[in-house]
Amino acid sequence: MSFEQNVRQVIPYVPGEQPIGKGIIKLNTNECPYPPAPGVEKASKLFQTDLLRLYPDPTIGELSQALADYYQVKKEQVFVGVGSDDVIAMAFMTFFNSDKPILFPQITYSFYDVWANLFRIPYKTLPLDENLRIKMEDYLIPNGGIIIANPNAPTGQFESVSDLEKIIAANPDVVVIIDEAYVDFGGESCIPLLSKYDNLLVVQTFSKSRSMAGMRIGYGIGNEKLIQYLQDVKYSFNSYTLNRQSIELGVEAVKDDVYFKETLQKVIQTREWVKKELQDLGFQFPDSKANFIFATHPSYSAKDLFEALKKEHIYVRHFNKPGIDQYLRISIGTDEEMNVLLEFIRKYCKG
Amino acid sequence: MSFEQNVRQVIPYVPGEQPIGKGIIKLNTNECPYPPAPGVEKASKLFQTDLLRLYPDPTIGELSQALADYYQVKKEQVFVGVGSDDVIAMAFMTFFNSDKPILFPQITYSFYDVWANLFRIPYKTLPLDENLRIKMEDYLIPNGGIIIANPNAPTGQFESVSDLEKIIAANPDVVVIIDEAYVDFGGESCIPLLSKYDNLLVVQTFSKSRSMAGMRIGYGIGNEKLIQYLQDVKYSFNSYTLNRQSIELGVEAVKDDVYFKETLQKVIQTREWVKKELQDLGFQFPDSKANFIFATHPSYSAKDLFEALKKEHIYVRHFNKPGIDQYLRISIGTDEEMNVLLEFIRKYCKG
Repeated sequence: MSFEQNVRQVIPYVPGEQPIGKGIIKLNTNECPYPPAPGVEKASKLFQTDLLRLYPDPTIGELSQALADYYQVKKEQVFVGVGSDDVIAMAFMTFFNSDKPILFPQITYSFYDVWANLFRIPYKTLPLDENLRIKMEDYLIPNGGIIIANPNAPTGQFESVSDLEKIIAANPDVVVIIDEAYVDFGGESCIPLLSKYDNLLVVQTFSKSRSMAGMRIGYGIGNEKLIQYLQDVKYSFNSYTLNRQSIELGVEAVKDDVYFKETLQKVIQTREWVKKELQDLGFQFPDSKANFIFATHPSYSAKDLFEALKKEHIYVRHFNKPGIDQYLRISIGTDEEMNVLLEFIRKYCKG
Repeated sequence: MSFEQNVRQVIPYVPGEQPIGKGIIKLNTNECPYPPAPGVEKASKLFQTDLLRLYPDPTIGELSQALADYYQVKKEQVFVGVGSDDVIAMAFMTFFNSDKPILFPQITYSFYDVWANLFRIPYKTLPLDENLRIKMEDYLIPNGGIIIANPNAPTGQFESVSDLEKIIAANPDVVVIIDEAYVDFGGESCIPLLSKYDNLLVVQTFSKSRSMAGMRIGYGIGNEKLIQYLQDVKYSFNSYTLNRQSIELGVEAVKDDVYFKETLQKVIQTREWVKKELQDLGFQFPDSKANFIFATHPSYSAKDLFEALKKEHIYVRHFNKPGIDQYLRISIGTDEEMNVLLEFIRKYCKG
């Protein structure tokens, strides 16, 4: 093919498997084991498909307003996208245009270097310490931007808002993105820092804590002007991103705070119980504040255990990457699902 | 804001107004006046919102297969995105990476230059002839890629497949995108050319002829390897783009070919009737094969008529752009809607 010389050739991100079928226990992509808020089902049933003939609101106004009200910011401080991946991709394109490298941890969400490569953004990854913690002092070197997941993925490790504030304050000339995909499960958001810093973009998602991975909704919150730059790039890429259902059903999810908090509590309780059980079995892991546990065992190969679990139709995530290839990332499912997992691991460890 | 030096500052595309309210006649964004296929409503009512907790199929497999079956190509030749704007944006990013300028008509879909500016792609626009036709011979100069809308927007002018084939055949070293957003309303698709040319990408959408602008589905069809390059970039940008409803409801729309053809016929009949009426009123326009008419009147200012219609809650589209600022782009609505429009114009012309 003679047009290939002008093709942007990339090595794409590989998402976790999406196995289909009954009897599968799916603990590999950090989805929530509980359904979305009841209002979401109601809105879906009442949805007027006749309206599909019309474009959706390109400003995603209702959902932006609902999120603004929830987080007590202005509507103009909210940017909504097709999942937080869409929001972060747009943010990379909008804000990371320096010749200096952007910075992020060596072990983190494995999409960051994929985006950097896609947009030809120079980057430098910084190692975690021996406890898989981010070394804050490393992020004070000259750079073109910073992105940190907090809690970090796939470690689940949470860094304090005051520690992150030091990074944000020390880097006023670049945008600092805090990716809070997992913050609702026991972390603390950097959103309150927005009143002090105009270079901060906080990104969250409906895919984990709001049980709506299948709906594709993510959002970024930042200074009004920063968000306007992001909107301009969005409107230069695709004016109408969220479809009508996403906007309507998304609003319902935000409205029901009682259900939201209940769901979070259930996931947290299960996580803390599973932590104890895994510890008893000799596993080691950072103290996760996310909806997964990143566990390693001194006596067993993570890859082998991953394969053994898969044979039992229990899917967890294994990253074939130096430094973390002895770990498994196990999403928190229902108590019943975690019981099946633990039963198998108990037998596996005895066997 | 001291981070602004690294911001990708752009002038975004401005979508047509999305007025909300009863009694509005909306003929400004080329939506279909008829609802989606009945199967779409059924699938929406039956949709299991519990499943929203799980990510959608990142390969958009079922919908890609349905489209492949419909167009008699392989599934691997189909790329699905969040509307055809998403597909084209991804294609610009993937294929247009030459130092030579990409080519497109001076008067065409006004998003093309926005994408070129966003991705810093050099471009050259080529004038239409005095009948608003594309001059095929202009597209034989050295270039980094070509995109042509056929039928063209906002003219509605259709160029023959054999004419376009000359451009595709003469430019094997670059990708040629044929944007067929409006092809179902009486044009002819370039899809059959795919068996002969590996540098062709044909893009279509559910937003017009399939009455699903609010659902955000578009697709590109091309050579397997070309599509794989596009998929790689998509997976480097956002793995999960279409949500679960889009995939399920999209399949239903493709399945119902009888309804699809009936809807097209209704729109075409209305268009041909409105053409006659407008002609009788002294309007001039290219012979549109799309679901809109691009009309000018020797005696009346397009801008004034646009404003007068808007006061009556009749929305058409006016482009404040040299060469076409004396035209109005009028989407084809129902017969009732077009009657109201024509009634008003008749009075306006007499007045």
